[in-house]
Amino acid sequence: MADSKAMVTREADFSAWYNEVIQRAELADYSPVRGCMVIRPNGYAIWEQMQRALDDMFKATGHQNAYFPLFIPQSFLAREAEHVEGFAPETAVVTHGGGKELEEPLVVRPTSETIIYAMYAKWIQSYRDLPLLINQWANVVRWEMRTRLFLRTTEFLWQEGHTAHASEAEAEEETLMILGLYRKFAEEWMAMPVLTGRKTDSEKFAGALRTYAIEALMQDNRALQAGTSHNLGQNFARAFDVTYQTAEGTLDHVWNTSWGVSTRLVGALIMTHSDDSGLVCPPRLAQWQVVIVPIWKTDEDRAAVHQAGTDVMNELRHAGIRTHLDAREGLKPGAKYFEWEARGVPLRLEIGPRDVAAGSVMLARRTGGKKEPISLVGLPKRIQAEIDTMQQALLDAARERRDAATVRGISKDEFIARMAGAGGFVFGGFCGSAACEAEIKEQTKATIRVLPDPEFRSPEPPARCMWCDAPSVAEAVWAKAY
Amino acid sequence: MADSKAMVTREADFSAWYNEVIQRAELADYSPVRGCMVIRPNGYAIWEQMQRALDDMFKATGHQNAYFPLFIPQSFLAREAEHVEGFAPETAVVTHGGGKELEEPLVVRPTSETIIYAMYAKWIQSYRDLPLLINQWANVVRWEMRTRLFLRTTEFLWQEGHTAHASEAEAEEETLMILGLYRKFAEEWMAMPVLTGRKTDSEKFAGALRTYAIEALMQDNRALQAGTSHNLGQNFARAFDVTYQTAEGTLDHVWNTSWGVSTRLVGALIMTHSDDSGLVCPPRLAQWQVVIVPIWKTDEDRAAVHQAGTDVMNELRHAGIRTHLDAREGLKPGAKYFEWEARGVPLRLEIGPRDVAAGSVMLARRTGGKKEPISLVGLPKRIQAEIDTMQQALLDAARERRDAATVRGISKDEFIARMAGAGGFVFGGFCGSAACEAEIKEQTKATIRVLPDPEFRSPEPPARCMWCDAPSVAEAVWAKAY
Repeated sequence: MADSKAMVTREADFSAWYNEVIQRAELADYSPVRGCMVIRPNGYAIWEQMQRALDDMFKATGHQNAYFPLFIPQSFLAREAEHVEGFAPETAVVTHGGGKELEEPLVVRPTSETIIYAMYAKWIQSYRDLPLLINQWANVVRWEMRTRLFLRTTEFLWQEGHTAHASEAEAEEETLMILGLYRKFAEEWMAMPVLTGRKTDSEKFAGALRTYAIEALMQDNRALQAGTSHNLGQNFARAFDVTYQTAEGTLDHVWNTSWGVSTRLVGALIMTHSDDSGLVCPPRLAQWQVVIVPIWKTDEDRAAVHQAGTDVMNELRHAGIRTHLDAREGLKPGAKYFEWEARGVPLRLEIGPRDVAAGSVMLARRTGGKKEPISLVGLPKRIQAEIDTMQQALLDAARERRDAATVRGISKDEFIARMAGAGGFVFGGFCGSAACEAEIKEQTKATIRVLPDPEFRSPEPPARCMWCDAPSVAEAVWAKAY
Repeated sequence: MADSKAMVTREADFSAWYNEVIQRAELADYSPVRGCMVIRPNGYAIWEQMQRALDDMFKATGHQNAYFPLFIPQSFLAREAEHVEGFAPETAVVTHGGGKELEEPLVVRPTSETIIYAMYAKWIQSYRDLPLLINQWANVVRWEMRTRLFLRTTEFLWQEGHTAHASEAEAEEETLMILGLYRKFAEEWMAMPVLTGRKTDSEKFAGALRTYAIEALMQDNRALQAGTSHNLGQNFARAFDVTYQTAEGTLDHVWNTSWGVSTRLVGALIMTHSDDSGLVCPPRLAQWQVVIVPIWKTDEDRAAVHQAGTDVMNELRHAGIRTHLDAREGLKPGAKYFEWEARGVPLRLEIGPRDVAAGSVMLARRTGGKKEPISLVGLPKRIQAEIDTMQQALLDAARERRDAATVRGISKDEFIARMAGAGGFVFGGFCGSAACEAEIKEQTKATIRVLPDPEFRSPEPPARCMWCDAPSVAEAVWAKAY
């Protein structure tokens, strides 16, 4: 139950505000297990909507789901050198099973490349078995020191795609196709604008040839990596001996990709749209897109408004609009409004005796507009239009905020001041040196989020490195990040 | 790819046959991790269909999904005495995380009562918070010595419902409602008849007041427990101090239920329906209900039959029938038939140039009927009727097999002979003594599957215990079980 004290504001303390939005909307809770969260029904419902939308996209592009073991023999992790270096320090290790010490400890999967490619070695024989396009919805564990609900937890839920191809070009095409799909999902479903591009070598996935990412900017002007797509080259195929007979009869290693998004997206959604009254959820991902609150004083009115509310609910549901009737007794309408507002329900319909008499309902929007009466005639069409308008308005507003917090071509001193102050995205020239990149991170805490794709690059390519003034080899986007 | 050698038959070696069905249909595979399986796309697709159907049923009865941590502090498991005794010996234990030894080891959940009720203690304050109806889709781990694909694996996927209620009567009602829902799912979706009833104390869930189950009989006349629903009473509420303020202002412990079905159901489905040609899958749960195989020799024919196949696919999909067009090149129609048969696709439509000319397709059923040409006019309706007929026929056939393998009122000697031979369900009187139950198990390997619900009981209640001849307190159903 939401508590009626005023919320802390974004401006006063963004981090405390974030936690309060989650608690008031009952999206997640801390658990007694260090670093692990509980995803409560209101939060899990958003994740289910995300899963449904993404799963449809994966299947429409030829992928199938499967399930691989939670446990990975410790020796598997070690087979790919960069991979073990990246992941071994943050693993949870099972040493005992069935009351006995194990001969070889098992790692709880931090990601599943190794166990999956060990199976692919068995399944793939010939070019006819390629491409192999598999996705898995699963939990993974990475031992985190500092955790935050949804954003960084020891256990989290995600999907991980793992594909095998007959050529580097096909693997690269898959990697970029998925990146585009993630972008489409972020923009069209989450109403969250993203930059796309490639990660520098210091920021790429441990074991990948190239990592691409979608990067969003939160309301506190810190960046959030919202999804990654890796071209793994033949690194894992060599480590796990995944070979195939080519059409010409020779033997070659396959080319792999892997890609994932996680429950972190729920955190991104919260920090992109919510306000000082609580959660704001894009209607396409909301558990309930419409909540109906009947208002009555007498028993006679009660029967009439409940009947009207039920009729409206059935009509909207029939039109495919996720609608809930809040018929709870013993709770005043105002308390219900307050609760549904904190929970981010996009549209609220209030129905009192006068509305029933007038053949209308009172429409209240979570964002963008005052209350107004609307006719019951043609209601589903009107509500669908409201949903579409709100979905687009949230994307537009988020894009405007991001663009306002984006600067290009500033000097090193301006960069330092900006990272100590307003934050946001900074586009600038980059010399390509990992040492320079590390120095920037150390002095300003900013990292290169991506080397942006052409569509996001500045019209004039920067000539010099923003930091060291050496010739620029690529434009980069810096930000302080989650 | 299915291999073209003849399969081992059910009669020759049921266990080898079961494994071969799984391998040929590519449903699952052994993994390099002891006791853990890989669920391959064909098998996972069946599980996804099961999930969708069950999830809809749970939501329609007011349940919401949530997600709780994979890890459980070892001390939590110990709080409920029977529970720890039942589960501690089969747990996997994480002793190290992030490179350090943990202060308290973490158990990988074998089931989630303890961690969930620890959260409920925090969330539930008042009778207004009840009932709390939550379900979780998750992986669980139970260290198994002898494993079999789908039936008994160290890690498996399942759903676990956990509810809290204000009275024992409400908890019992929920427990039985879910039992009925499981039965409905088994019969209407899996085409698998089940007995329902209560478990004896020796067979109940560790920590439950009462356990109810659905029990099916496989083609080798061994029983399989396909789902359980537990009334937990106040046992866990006491152990985790889950209390609520009643409407009268007093404080009471809540009443809990928990219930689950797992990927074991995929094994049950296989052993209920499949034959010596491979998997037989009830159409309502099949990944593809219809596969279209175009047949051609010349390039000209090829274009025509592919067009016709695509048109048919689109028409059937539009009608909500899961349809796949197998347009693979370089594979003869016969090889495709063989493969789809092993994979259990209910209906196959063959389209050759002569079929196109005649405005018909050749329909082949996986079970129950010979090939016959059917008209393209009104095809979706005809196919839907075929699906419904096959679904019902599979249930009828399975029920007939089960009933033929069920006997009532036999003597102790007949019982011993039966359990050493044909197997099946045996209904008989039970004295209620755990010692008698244990002796039967030791001497015959048969266990009491359920004390059956009234609808399954014999018209005349048995007067004496089938084994010890003492007065019977309840009718029981015995079988050797998976």
